[in-house]
Amino acid sequence: MNTEIKTIAFDADDTLWDNEPYFREAEDRFCALLEDYLPHHSVSQELYKTELQNLSLYGYGIKGFMLSMIETICRVSAGTASLQGVQAAIQLGQDMLRQPVVLLDGVEQVLGTLKGKYRLVMATKGDLLDQERKLKQSGLQDYFHHIEIMSDKQVADYRKLLRHLDCNPGQFLMLGNSIKSDVLPVLELGGFAAHIPYHTTWVHEQYEHSLEHPHFLQLNTITDLLPYLSL
Amino acid sequence: MNTEIKTIAFDADDTLWDNEPYFREAEDRFCALLEDYLPHHSVSQELYKTELQNLSLYGYGIKGFMLSMIETICRVSAGTASLQGVQAAIQLGQDMLRQPVVLLDGVEQVLGTLKGKYRLVMATKGDLLDQERKLKQSGLQDYFHHIEIMSDKQVADYRKLLRHLDCNPGQFLMLGNSIKSDVLPVLELGGFAAHIPYHTTWVHEQYEHSLEHPHFLQLNTITDLLPYLSL
Repeated sequence: MNTEIKTIAFDADDTLWDNEPYFREAEDRFCALLEDYLPHHSVSQELYKTELQNLSLYGYGIKGFMLSMIETICRVSAGTASLQGVQAAIQLGQDMLRQPVVLLDGVEQVLGTLKGKYRLVMATKGDLLDQERKLKQSGLQDYFHHIEIMSDKQVADYRKLLRHLDCNPGQFLMLGNSIKSDVLPVLELGGFAAHIPYHTTWVHEQYEHSLEHPHFLQLNTITDLLPYLSL
Repeated sequence: MNTEIKTIAFDADDTLWDNEPYFREAEDRFCALLEDYLPHHSVSQELYKTELQNLSLYGYGIKGFMLSMIETICRVSAGTASLQGVQAAIQLGQDMLRQPVVLLDGVEQVLGTLKGKYRLVMATKGDLLDQERKLKQSGLQDYFHHIEIMSDKQVADYRKLLRHLDCNPGQFLMLGNSIKSDVLPVLELGGFAAHIPYHTTWVHEQYEHSLEHPHFLQLNTITDLLPYLSL
């Protein structure tokens, strides 16, 4: 591994703590609400279609997910469902916003080992307040030099982050569970990236190809990173 | 005015561009949707009650406002309204998210005069993506050294901002239309603050007392700031 690396940025959702399973669980319950109108799988597809349509307007996060669930109820039922489904969708979302934060295995050990040796950054997308809440509850705040909550993780967003951190791409390593959001845009800028798969990935983040690149590391768990670094 | 000031931070909504009238206009239309259940003024009170209840969960911004409108429909109609009201509330919110940005008088002149002489910062609260969209549409991006989109504007939030900017409170001036959010917490930290009233203020931001403080400037318009600075 490149010994020039000075800054290591961590994705948060499904890299530091569980996130996607809460969305999938809420989606399952949501599909059940509409089973009088459409089979489970079709509701799921309709919800995803609504989410994609709204993504440029709402961005990532639970509030947009709630609004898309509600809009899907209106469309799937052709405006004929009762408000009880809407209330249930609001409740599902509010429960998600109150979910306790569960750290993934090895996270505290890795952050503790790297702290003081590298500049550590958390770089996540989603609702501002919700990501701040999770960070606070996680107890990980003090490990990080900087927290960046991004509206998206495209090349331009990483370029902005690197400028903000006053960091050359060649000294930057990004870690995360999404090849599309955490790896490809960073490699494109000349940075380093490591992928740590998580057992559940949102369709929108799925990436089916295999990836080989001199700046890319495929890991199994977060602790697998340590042997590649100068410690 | 203190000649030590090096950093000037501007609130955005209703300081750089119009915002609150869009919320009030949406609220008026929302109240009309529920006129079969409650008089206009009572719907408005119910909506405000819902917004306050959800503020710690949703934070500031249009998506939370949309979810609170929908929740208010459910409660005010005791679950008996049709989905048409919900669809109308979603449409009201989506229209707000697509509103063009209208700069307030004097803003570009003041930013142009100060650029290069002070470090200029935009410090706003609200939905991350929506504030980024408005900044981009405003064309003001290049005037600012730093953009801070905050989940709240309490003393602790400004302390974090000042630390991030590596700025002493005595070298910091905040400008905005809300005494509660833009002035009082900054004065408490030892910074300077200027209030520029806007014709419409959300109940939650209203402040009825008169304020006198050696670090406080009451202005009428943004251009009134210039004579107080070293230019």
